[in-house]
Amino acid sequence: MDNNRFKGLAQQYKNELLGNVLPFWLEKSQDKKYGGYFTCLDRKGEVFDTDKFIWLQGREVWLFSMLYNNLENNPLWLECARQGGEFLKKFGHDGNLNWYFSLTREGNPIIEPYNIFSYTFATMAFGQLSKATGSEEYADIAKKTFDIVLSKVDNPKGKWNKSHPGTRNLKNFALPMILCNLALEIEHLLDHDFMERTIETCIHEVMDVFYRPELGIIVENVTSDTEELSDTFEGRVINPGHAIEAMWFIMDLGERLHRPELIEKAAKIAVQMIEYGWDNQHGGIFYFLDRKGHPVQQLEWDQKLWWVHIETLISMIKGYQLTGSQDCLRWFEKIQEYTWAQFKDKEYPEWFGYLNRMGEVLLPLKGGKWKGCFHVPRGLYQCWKTLDKIG
Amino acid sequence: MDNNRFKGLAQQYKNELLGNVLPFWLEKSQDKKYGGYFTCLDRKGEVFDTDKFIWLQGREVWLFSMLYNNLENNPLWLECARQGGEFLKKFGHDGNLNWYFSLTREGNPIIEPYNIFSYTFATMAFGQLSKATGSEEYADIAKKTFDIVLSKVDNPKGKWNKSHPGTRNLKNFALPMILCNLALEIEHLLDHDFMERTIETCIHEVMDVFYRPELGIIVENVTSDTEELSDTFEGRVINPGHAIEAMWFIMDLGERLHRPELIEKAAKIAVQMIEYGWDNQHGGIFYFLDRKGHPVQQLEWDQKLWWVHIETLISMIKGYQLTGSQDCLRWFEKIQEYTWAQFKDKEYPEWFGYLNRMGEVLLPLKGGKWKGCFHVPRGLYQCWKTLDKIG
Repeated sequence: MDNNRFKGLAQQYKNELLGNVLPFWLEKSQDKKYGGYFTCLDRKGEVFDTDKFIWLQGREVWLFSMLYNNLENNPLWLECARQGGEFLKKFGHDGNLNWYFSLTREGNPIIEPYNIFSYTFATMAFGQLSKATGSEEYADIAKKTFDIVLSKVDNPKGKWNKSHPGTRNLKNFALPMILCNLALEIEHLLDHDFMERTIETCIHEVMDVFYRPELGIIVENVTSDTEELSDTFEGRVINPGHAIEAMWFIMDLGERLHRPELIEKAAKIAVQMIEYGWDNQHGGIFYFLDRKGHPVQQLEWDQKLWWVHIETLISMIKGYQLTGSQDCLRWFEKIQEYTWAQFKDKEYPEWFGYLNRMGEVLLPLKGGKWKGCFHVPRGLYQCWKTLDKIG
Repeated sequence: MDNNRFKGLAQQYKNELLGNVLPFWLEKSQDKKYGGYFTCLDRKGEVFDTDKFIWLQGREVWLFSMLYNNLENNPLWLECARQGGEFLKKFGHDGNLNWYFSLTREGNPIIEPYNIFSYTFATMAFGQLSKATGSEEYADIAKKTFDIVLSKVDNPKGKWNKSHPGTRNLKNFALPMILCNLALEIEHLLDHDFMERTIETCIHEVMDVFYRPELGIIVENVTSDTEELSDTFEGRVINPGHAIEAMWFIMDLGERLHRPELIEKAAKIAVQMIEYGWDNQHGGIFYFLDRKGHPVQQLEWDQKLWWVHIETLISMIKGYQLTGSQDCLRWFEKIQEYTWAQFKDKEYPEWFGYLNRMGEVLLPLKGGKWKGCFHVPRGLYQCWKTLDKIG
């Protein structure tokens, strides 16, 4: 690709973000009556369910604050983030920053604070919102919630943990992976030495514990007491999208810490994971695989999910920009073609989230319980800015 | 169909049960070293995972005891059931008949007793096993476990319940549905009046609370405090297979209680649910639907599952046998054609469990975490015996 091609692509991502995706969420998702956001939006953006999921409330606060901080001081973005932050502050937790999983439209708790990622996304939300507003109160919520996250690392589900203690101690990839990203997100709020130690621990976990050089892949669960992998459903499952997403978090840390070798390694692993997860028959990246080729537990294993493909675009374009890897560039082009052709809705705003193995729309929603204002706009922003640096 | 056709079909179901499916489980699933059963079996019957799931352990004990009691005093069947019962008795619970969800091959608990259906399937298992062996000890386990089930009706998940109390009180269809079946299963162990009251309650729940005449369908969740349906993911979801299966439990109760009008109603509702759930484009019955046509939470919504189709065969042939309904007969023929063509493995024993929307094999397993020695053999047995009565 020549520079003009990169410039053209940067423009394409920018236009899609500013002209299509952000207006969709600004107009369709804000609950003007009770505050917070609707995320269950059908193909045209009509609300089909009013429940509010803390993951997605936090992520939308984060997204609009982040764009306000990094892209443009647009007062509409700030107001959108702020009103969501106020809703979260008031209703999202139990009074002690234990973050519920979901609320009714009015803010009454439905599902208890069993899910650690409600906490991590609340931390991200209030971290960026404190930057955008200068509010000490928001900064304090972010810091205190982050401390609770760290205190829960050894048993994230707390009393809702259904594993019998002692039989099979598994550690999941998602938490160290998210912490890699979260660390940079709230760096401005934390003590420098503490931050560096936390970052080192996360990098070690992701690159030395969950990445298995003998297999060339990142596994989703490891045993906490032995080096050996667990030959169980959980110990065999591979989530390529998860691993690929983590690799751009690691590249960001590599840039921040000036460690080119870490970036090289992350770019290489990301390519390995794409090659591992690519569906040669129908295109796209599988959602779940079993590393021994056995049947997986997840019935949705062969589906093609929006976030998997968008996170792959980010990893590949960053990998190319930072290392010049031609593998990264080749995969970026291939995934870019698939993603824009299959996930972008050509008739209505925003992108589809869930396709079947063949790439056909499985659920025509633009947002739901798990898809909100997050992966699509974050991915468009990240790709645009990275393409800009190349072009 | 004439009588010869029914006789021929009865023979076909009998042969499949005795010549194909039962030998598969007898040979492949028994763990000769530790006792209990392997259920994670690949296409050829090779063990691919050794974890033991209490639902499936209990169901296999039940299946072989039930056939021993009702079909033939085959000592191999009794021994298969007995050794599984001993494994369950020793390792399946915490010492107070709180039944774990899963164990390691050796019998160490992996997942805590959060799931009420571990208890219901243990009750079924020891109920039939006590009949087969005359053992007071097994009868006692069944009775005591059944009492615990009834004591948990209002909060089946106990301390693992993640719903915040008071906000949204939903009641799920699965428990009253299973109790309809369980009641007849352990009738021989219970006080007559108590049994009759329990049965009346279950019939009322299924036919008057979860069946909604204004919609013509059975819903999966109702609110426990109001008549109105909940306009939420849980309140909108429809599981046609579940409802269709429950209808043959109700027909059995109708026979037992000599209530032809109850049987008529159940047969009619079953037909309505099939018509509601049938996939006009690719054939087969959907796994989940939303009663308002909104996107469902379950990504596997459009898949075709073995148990859904096998339970439908039972309901339709019973409906025809008991009421003479031509709708039941027509659907029996149509589902029979689909089921035998898509689910039966023509090369290796037992049937596939999970097909995609198009009817292609999604997971090539014969058994797993949820598919064991249960729906296929129970369905073959039920259809055979019912066809015999017709022919």
